[in-house]
Amino acid sequence: MNHQIIVKNYPVGWLQESNFEYRQVPIAKPGESEVLIENRFLSLDPYMRGRLSGSKSYAPSAELGQVMVGSCTGVVIESRSNKFRPGDTVLNTLGWQTHGICKDTELKAIDTSEIPEHAYLGVLGMPGVTAWTGLIDICEAKRGETVVVDAASGAVGSVVGQLALARGCHVIGIAGSVEKCNYVVEELGFNACINHQAPDFKDQIKNILPKGIDCLFENVGGEIFETLLLLMNPFSRIALCGLVSEYNVNPYGNRCLRSILINRIKFQGFIVTDKLETWPAIIKELKQAYLQGHLKYKLSQVDGIENAPKALIDLLKGNNFGKQVVKLS
Amino acid sequence: MNHQIIVKNYPVGWLQESNFEYRQVPIAKPGESEVLIENRFLSLDPYMRGRLSGSKSYAPSAELGQVMVGSCTGVVIESRSNKFRPGDTVLNTLGWQTHGICKDTELKAIDTSEIPEHAYLGVLGMPGVTAWTGLIDICEAKRGETVVVDAASGAVGSVVGQLALARGCHVIGIAGSVEKCNYVVEELGFNACINHQAPDFKDQIKNILPKGIDCLFENVGGEIFETLLLLMNPFSRIALCGLVSEYNVNPYGNRCLRSILINRIKFQGFIVTDKLETWPAIIKELKQAYLQGHLKYKLSQVDGIENAPKALIDLLKGNNFGKQVVKLS
Repeated sequence: MNHQIIVKNYPVGWLQESNFEYRQVPIAKPGESEVLIENRFLSLDPYMRGRLSGSKSYAPSAELGQVMVGSCTGVVIESRSNKFRPGDTVLNTLGWQTHGICKDTELKAIDTSEIPEHAYLGVLGMPGVTAWTGLIDICEAKRGETVVVDAASGAVGSVVGQLALARGCHVIGIAGSVEKCNYVVEELGFNACINHQAPDFKDQIKNILPKGIDCLFENVGGEIFETLLLLMNPFSRIALCGLVSEYNVNPYGNRCLRSILINRIKFQGFIVTDKLETWPAIIKELKQAYLQGHLKYKLSQVDGIENAPKALIDLLKGNNFGKQVVKLS
Repeated sequence: MNHQIIVKNYPVGWLQESNFEYRQVPIAKPGESEVLIENRFLSLDPYMRGRLSGSKSYAPSAELGQVMVGSCTGVVIESRSNKFRPGDTVLNTLGWQTHGICKDTELKAIDTSEIPEHAYLGVLGMPGVTAWTGLIDICEAKRGETVVVDAASGAVGSVVGQLALARGCHVIGIAGSVEKCNYVVEELGFNACINHQAPDFKDQIKNILPKGIDCLFENVGGEIFETLLLLMNPFSRIALCGLVSEYNVNPYGNRCLRSILINRIKFQGFIVTDKLETWPAIIKELKQAYLQGHLKYKLSQVDGIENAPKALIDLLKGNNFGKQVVKLS
């Protein structure tokens, strides 16, 4: 049987497990130029919250009654395509299900000889390309500049910091616990990391940034972003990648936009899928960095597709630690 | 005697006439390479509110007990420079005073044979260059795009709209009265102008923009800006020139930053004096447009330096109509 999680209804406020429904359906048979895949890993990412809404965004909503959207890695178990053979490991967008049929044009073969499969959902996948695009393309980070990234221990933030360090930047992370901050500094090599849960967070972040911020990679929004806005330098840049603190609650009212004016900040939103043509070269660079040991990451894994809804909610609450995946088989 | 307005103290909240003080001092004598000027026009501009504060900004504060800062046009009445002769009309930064001494390197001669003197404080001066820089350099407005500008009848907004029209853009203004809106459409040729004082402003602006906004030239901030943010198109641009609605009150809490993310907006603050090297070519273009009748403007004039404080307060409240100057002699 194919085990699926479908979208039952859209949340109002916080996402709930009850917004999803588990079901089993028979495994289908591939048609011509199609393959049948058994998925091993499902990627969970903050963008998924944006799909669970009827309102207009940059991508269509996940459809009610349909399998929840997402990227997976898995193995081909039956093929009617001359491009793939049983046993091939592939990246696909089958979403939250253990099995599925794909056209052979909707798949990408991945090489797992030197690289673990789940890396293609993280450092060498969409989150890694997101980090690169925001830091290099939008922020134009240069040697000697100070880079700040929040959600620093996460799939995107951890890559942002490591890429910035490799470019000779001074890198400060922000994360949601002492444990995460320790990991970011000790394992990933960030120059410092501040716990935004600390009661004196605002003082701490100000004190650690005597020379201000040149590049801000923004994942979180809310009061954290407002605090950081006041620490931006003249002619600094902000890559707006996410506002995860605001996805499940009423949006925060940001009172510090004057900083954008007086500091002549470039503040730019971006979506990594807008420039698919840039991906191959970026992934090549990321792969090289990974193989040289300069792109570490931490895997946060839950087992079984029935646990995916709770794991996504935990991710949105910041309760996970590292790149979140669901092990499917 | 030289009649001056000095900065008595910095306002808390709304600027008051009592923050200024009038005084008379003897007219000084020019030293070597200096000239004595009698000013005719003082320019009033929203940026002045930012100078009346002890807090950090892009430019130093106006000093307590000193003449309030500002740009003027006037006539040389005594010269000890070989670059200027009595009778020359000059642009200067003597500030809020009827007379003053300038080094000959701090002056610019202006040609009033075809152009009224006060144009050099408006369409052919700092406000005109500001309009050009935000629209062309930051917003990169292209033929066929929709451009929105608020404070549309003001010194900057009126130039933004006329430059955009000349480039083949569809131009919508926002202004603070029916009279201003009529002027913007009938005299300046904007495609439409919406009165932000109207109770159904949000509906009106939405209805007039069925194809959304490609370029927003933002002068006002507050709830107007928040409303416009939700109407921005994918890959649109915002030039942040001012936040005049927020200068005298607690800053507005903007809850719509998610639009910057999902629409991949470039939102950039700028200060026109950052790129002084671009001014001569821009002013040349503006002068040509003016002489061809494509850069109209309305002068809002008060008489006498003692009325400058009230006139600046009126400007910040939107009670003026057009380019605000004070006639000094």
